[in-house]
Amino acid sequence: MSSIKVTVWNEFQHEKNNERVKAIYPEGIHATIASFLNAEEGITAQTAVLDEPEHGLTEAVLQETDVLIWWGHVAHEDVADEIVERVRQRVLEGMGLIVLHSGHASKIFRALMGTNTGSLKWRDDGEKERVWVIESAHPIAAGLGEYFEIPKEEMYGERFEIPAPDELVFISWFEGGEVFRSGCCYKRGLGKVFYFRPGHETFPVYHQAEVQRVIMNGVRWAVKGEGAKATYGRVAPLEPVR
Amino acid sequence: MSSIKVTVWNEFQHEKNNERVKAIYPEGIHATIASFLNAEEGITAQTAVLDEPEHGLTEAVLQETDVLIWWGHVAHEDVADEIVERVRQRVLEGMGLIVLHSGHASKIFRALMGTNTGSLKWRDDGEKERVWVIESAHPIAAGLGEYFEIPKEEMYGERFEIPAPDELVFISWFEGGEVFRSGCCYKRGLGKVFYFRPGHETFPVYHQAEVQRVIMNGVRWAVKGEGAKATYGRVAPLEPVR
Amino acid sequence: MSSIKVTVWNEFQHEKNNERVKAIYPEGIHATIASFLNAEEGITAQTAVLDEPEHGLTEAVLQETDVLIWWGHVAHEDVADEIVERVRQRVLEGMGLIVLHSGHASKIFRALMGTNTGSLKWRDDGEKERVWVIESAHPIAAGLGEYFEIPKEEMYGERFEIPAPDELVFISWFEGGEVFRSGCCYKRGLGKVFYFRPGHETFPVYHQAEVQRVIMNGVRWAVKGEGAKATYGRVAPLEPVR
Amino acid sequence: MSSIKVTVWNEFQHEKNNERVKAIYPEGIHATIASFLNAEEGITAQTAVLDEPEHGLTEAVLQETDVLIWWGHVAHEDVADEIVERVRQRVLEGMGLIVLHSGHASKIFRALMGTNTGSLKWRDDGEKERVWVIESAHPIAAGLGEYFEIPKEEMYGERFEIPAPDELVFISWFEGGEVFRSGCCYKRGLGKVFYFRPGHETFPVYHQAEVQRVIMNGVRWAVKGEGAKATYGRVAPLEPVR
Repeated sequence: MSSIKVTVWNEFQHEKNNERVKAIYPEGIHATIASFLNAEEGITAQTAVLDEPEHGLTEAVLQETDVLIWWGHVAHEDVADEIVERVRQRVLEGMGLIVLHSGHASKIFRALMGTNTGSLKWRDDGEKERVWVIESAHPIAAGLGEYFEIPKEEMYGERFEIPAPDELVFISWFEGGEVFRSGCCYKRGLGKVFYFRPGHETFPVYHQAEVQRVIMNGVRWAVKGEGAKATYGRVAPLEPVR
Repeated sequence: MSSIKVTVWNEFQHEKNNERVKAIYPEGIHATIASFLNAEEGITAQTAVLDEPEHGLTEAVLQETDVLIWWGHVAHEDVADEIVERVRQRVLEGMGLIVLHSGHASKIFRALMGTNTGSLKWRDDGEKERVWVIESAHPIAAGLGEYFEIPKEEMYGERFEIPAPDELVFISWFEGGEVFRSGCCYKRGLGKVFYFRPGHETFPVYHQAEVQRVIMNGVRWAVKGEGAKATYGRVAPLEPVR
Repeated sequence: MSSIKVTVWNEFQHEKNNERVKAIYPEGIHATIASFLNAEEGITAQTAVLDEPEHGLTEAVLQETDVLIWWGHVAHEDVADEIVERVRQRVLEGMGLIVLHSGHASKIFRALMGTNTGSLKWRDDGEKERVWVIESAHPIAAGLGEYFEIPKEEMYGERFEIPAPDELVFISWFEGGEVFRSGCCYKRGLGKVFYFRPGHETFPVYHQAEVQRVIMNGVRWAVKGEGAKATYGRVAPLEPVR
Repeated sequence: MSSIKVTVWNEFQHEKNNERVKAIYPEGIHATIASFLNAEEGITAQTAVLDEPEHGLTEAVLQETDVLIWWGHVAHEDVADEIVERVRQRVLEGMGLIVLHSGHASKIFRALMGTNTGSLKWRDDGEKERVWVIESAHPIAAGLGEYFEIPKEEMYGERFEIPAPDELVFISWFEGGEVFRSGCCYKRGLGKVFYFRPGHETFPVYHQAEVQRVIMNGVRWAVKGEGAKATYGRVAPLEPVR
């Protein structure tokens, strides 16, 4: 089996403007994620960022991408609608999509879900998060224990305005008293979508082994397999019509 | 309990331009649907059409609407994006939405589902459709037998590019050899969405008792109940954070 | 509409043997639940307990029951298999079933779910539980805030070995660090099943207003409506077979 | 990756008693299925039948089985309850299970689903079945076209009393006018269950390439992956409880 081609997209703004974030991700969150993915056998990751032409998401790049990872936060509205629609069509054709953390409010996640996925509770006080595995046999949970902890994280709390996930893999407990559906799987068209909650830019979340493991698992899960053929439009009858 | 307020929306084009359709629905499909709904106790139906200002779907109209019924076909692209977004937000706030037949390709259904819901197979040869009840206890199936037949209908065939429905109430058998998920229930935000397949404009489908019964059932099902309060945004912790 | 007929079943053991429980529920948990239900307009509740002939669940009683509520803990294995099967068949015919707290390990819940629903984590230290509403528009959440707290409760923690619920209404946060899917809706046959977590016998949980509200909501939700007819077995073809 | 170990279980009655069936499956349905599976790279299939001690499903056999395939019809009630429970526990621990055709009424499928899965419509007139792919990207549909036809089959018609499948992969159209959910995926415990409709003993269904392909796909899909650890029972708090 040939290598899985991943494109890690990042708006790449905080890392240039905020010293605290720069200290954690000197080359950007995308570089950190691409780096641990490239260390994995059978995965080849490249990156793309907002400031590139077409945000680095040309037709050619997307056609060569098996799984796209999305991180955005302050610049959601700067992503061109045309590019969002291009990405959406590629997902419906079978490209996997992993939406991370504040990407919940991105145009692409909103477009694929149909709801106001920006609606949730939040608090960036750096509290403890404990991510519980709900579906122990799910491939996205492979290699984890029953839970893992993130020592300091931004809290996201329910209600989160998403369609009920096809599969709910993780639920988070927060020190401050909230819960959150932190690992949500969807099928849309021929593509798979995985929303994974952790990853605030001011904490070193993507340097943590369990978080890396989940993203690697998510990549493998999101790749489209062979499937069946589907066609659409006007068709002749297969049986005699009286 | 006060009356359920329904707005029946129709693009209202075929009935003005096509003699065959005019003969079946002289005042428009919307008028026929509103008429049988108004004959029902506890339902008050009004209508709105594409050519009215704001397509008849002003903020005031939508605020007063418990359930919106949508029929469109040739003029999907003439519906203003702003109005589509307004309707979408009302659904997410709790307004019920019933999408009929060729409304599968409408902007509002595509926006709420996130997929290319226009993608399916079709053939308008006027063949027999048999609509089978899959979830016998579902309120949308109330009063039906195990199936009902539509003597002449347009065929829609799978694959239909929708997210897997939260509840699949009907599956259709077609004389020409296809099957279709004909009654699909979704929850989106605080609102309920019901897609119901039958209703080609050249056949008297909305004059048929079983079809009327399903639409009436759908209206009652789609009304939002009391529910719980939900708020979003930054919140203080409920428990001490170290 | 006539009154909803509820039967509240309780094994009724702790309340006779344990002074602490007796002090909270002097006439039994079943009596407390039946009492607040009977105070509700449109609901008529009776009780049944393990020590009655046929555990109080005769064919006649079940035929007259719209919704059965189940509380059991130490005596699950004392419930006769024949009665469990009788209850299961009535649920499949349309009787609603609400399974409370330690009823998760009852024979009837195991039989209807097919999994080892006794498998979960627990700790009866009397810690704080915060029950979060996940589906704000669900009728079972009617009248609640975004969450409610139970000051002292037994903890149940994931993983809980249940089939993924058709609708997940509540997720609980526990002081000791766990989460739990606390409100789970299922359809089985023509019947509806609602699992609701709170209710340890050593704490006055069923005297709390929010818990009572959820149970009342659950009763209204679980009642079977009209539905469609379903028949089974050998049938003649509806179309000519060559 | 090591070979997937499959056990093909068959009641093996018709093939001994009915000349017509014997002509199609001289060594039994199980032998035919094991044979095409063994021709597949990475799959090793053995067989087991009702008349063997413990029906050939000893603890040792089940511990060494990744995926169990089940065909039964006239002898469901001859399968010992103890063996059914043993199989059920292995499924909950992660063994895959593929239930074929009349296995819908088997004790093991009824036990895992919780409903009267024997309830459906049927007619063994040897009519045409057209199996439509609903989820084109699903691995169980890999390599298929949009549909495949079985020239002569027993009809199964809705309503089929199953819990709504986690994933609905196939819907069948029948010449005589019925429809059926023919490919249904479930997760139960750590195991996966796939119900696949085709396979009446008097027609050469398991000699057909598309049917073989689906069963091979089902085997690959049903194998448990690595997953996460899960434990149950009394636990100490992870956070201080006041």
